[in-house]
Amino acid sequence: MAVYTQVSDEQLNDFLDEYDLGAPLSFKGIAEGVENTNFLLVTEKGRYILTLYEKRVNKDDLPFFLDLIDHLAGGGITCPTPLHDKKGNSLKTCAGRPAALFTFLDGMSVRRPTAHHCGALGEAMARFHNCGKSFKGQRENSFSIQGMRDFYHGIDGDINSIEQGLSELIEAEITALEAAWPQDLPKGIVHADLFPDNVFFLGNEISGLIDFYFACTDFLSLDLAITLNAWCFEQDHSFNVTKAGRLLAGYHQIRAIEAAEIEALPIIARASALRFLLTRTHDWLLPTDGALVAKKDPREYLRKLKFHQSISNPGSYGFTHPA
Amino acid sequence: MAVYTQVSDEQLNDFLDEYDLGAPLSFKGIAEGVENTNFLLVTEKGRYILTLYEKRVNKDDLPFFLDLIDHLAGGGITCPTPLHDKKGNSLKTCAGRPAALFTFLDGMSVRRPTAHHCGALGEAMARFHNCGKSFKGQRENSFSIQGMRDFYHGIDGDINSIEQGLSELIEAEITALEAAWPQDLPKGIVHADLFPDNVFFLGNEISGLIDFYFACTDFLSLDLAITLNAWCFEQDHSFNVTKAGRLLAGYHQIRAIEAAEIEALPIIARASALRFLLTRTHDWLLPTDGALVAKKDPREYLRKLKFHQSISNPGSYGFTHPA
Repeated sequence: MAVYTQVSDEQLNDFLDEYDLGAPLSFKGIAEGVENTNFLLVTEKGRYILTLYEKRVNKDDLPFFLDLIDHLAGGGITCPTPLHDKKGNSLKTCAGRPAALFTFLDGMSVRRPTAHHCGALGEAMARFHNCGKSFKGQRENSFSIQGMRDFYHGIDGDINSIEQGLSELIEAEITALEAAWPQDLPKGIVHADLFPDNVFFLGNEISGLIDFYFACTDFLSLDLAITLNAWCFEQDHSFNVTKAGRLLAGYHQIRAIEAAEIEALPIIARASALRFLLTRTHDWLLPTDGALVAKKDPREYLRKLKFHQSISNPGSYGFTHPA
Repeated sequence: MAVYTQVSDEQLNDFLDEYDLGAPLSFKGIAEGVENTNFLLVTEKGRYILTLYEKRVNKDDLPFFLDLIDHLAGGGITCPTPLHDKKGNSLKTCAGRPAALFTFLDGMSVRRPTAHHCGALGEAMARFHNCGKSFKGQRENSFSIQGMRDFYHGIDGDINSIEQGLSELIEAEITALEAAWPQDLPKGIVHADLFPDNVFFLGNEISGLIDFYFACTDFLSLDLAITLNAWCFEQDHSFNVTKAGRLLAGYHQIRAIEAAEIEALPIIARASALRFLLTRTHDWLLPTDGALVAKKDPREYLRKLKFHQSISNPGSYGFTHPA
């Protein structure tokens, strides 16, 4: 969300020498993306985004991400696509960091999604999942149940300072999820971070998806759960069943949700809420580094977790399986 | 240099309702400008910069700055120009902050200016000064000698922790400058912050000047001194007399430098070095707010100050007045 690495005009010119994009006309650092540095680059040929991968992205994962995005773009999923240089490479080096150059995607994220936005998201997500089926790459979800247990043990600081009993609640939840975890749901490539920030709209239509740096191989319904959590709760923390119903119905229109996926949704939604509860708890307890990055309240996801714990009938998510 | 204020899609749409620019296509926070928040906005009509003025810019000064930029653009100085809304206003409010929308200026700043760049800068600066002559607005330089004395007294922290004796040196320098300060040099609108960051080039030609938020009424040669300091020292701290000569000669070609201005240049250059020594000292002693904003070493400007103190003959700046 900031410019961590500076790129001089000389470094940019050296980098551009390996492409065929004409002279640079404009080059500005932008505040977008997870933990990477992004620049908007305008050349004689058009607009691009230059991404420099910073320390929090594992270098070894970059070929998976770039190949996946190439595959998605080839399959008609609109997203910023990596450019290949004169030698055919998309993963490059710039200013000493791994880097890639992407096409520029028009569109803006919505702060307060409507039911219409949620329906459109469901459709786009299902298309993404369908397209991912033919992708050969695989990447383990680092926030599997075991991954969450490891992450939880790695958190420094007093977790119960956030809320009394939080630590015990997290431990019990991990154990409960382990016991209840389904074995046989449809798997494939999931985005795993489809927050409103990462979905661009033009007017009321989705113009594309961005930021695939958490993508991995897992239950497809994990994306349903993540988006129910991120798109269907109101600012007063109430669950908007109309939005959720539209999201699931939009998805189902493109890729039929299996009965078993609906059945398991409360468990998957709990796991998804726990995942963001854990990372926000971790970030919350880090020493502050000034006002530039606003920390997100972990208790938002604690509330969502408790909501899903209370669900006894998956119909409560606003979608009844037609079977 | 960061996004201090977030603007939601609803706030942006409300703001754009007062212009006639078509629908927004893209909107991204960028890392540019002094202490303001800047967004790159693309609409159906073109590319723009939306600036939100944060606390470090005095709201009362904004009409002066916006009128000045309008005047410059009308006089053929290329710079980002404020758009006027349907009612004719350029100073607006967005997301609760004073705001203005600007045309987008192509170009990039150079990290290591060459002698050619310095000559081009001299010419552009002289055109800027000539154009400013017909501008009616006035704004006092907050870094006049008295202003610097006040600023110096307001610095919190142990100045001598930066370098032994720095505090005494600053006091003596302010006193010396007060005594030696010229009374009768040509005055007008100066940019007062023409660092390489604020001058855009396309190829080898200047495409425009940006960031007029230190502009004020003072000796025109103050801009000469500021740019000698910012453009003509090498990374090893040596003064590059070729670059300085080209800068002054380029300027002189467009606006004749008076003999008295050359005579006074060592004093003006000392004042200009002191000005940035003071602000960098102030910022250096502030509590750190993380790694996102790299602090600039005040000793760089201490070295420059000492260099100018050692100048006995203004010819050392590489330009001999033809008179």
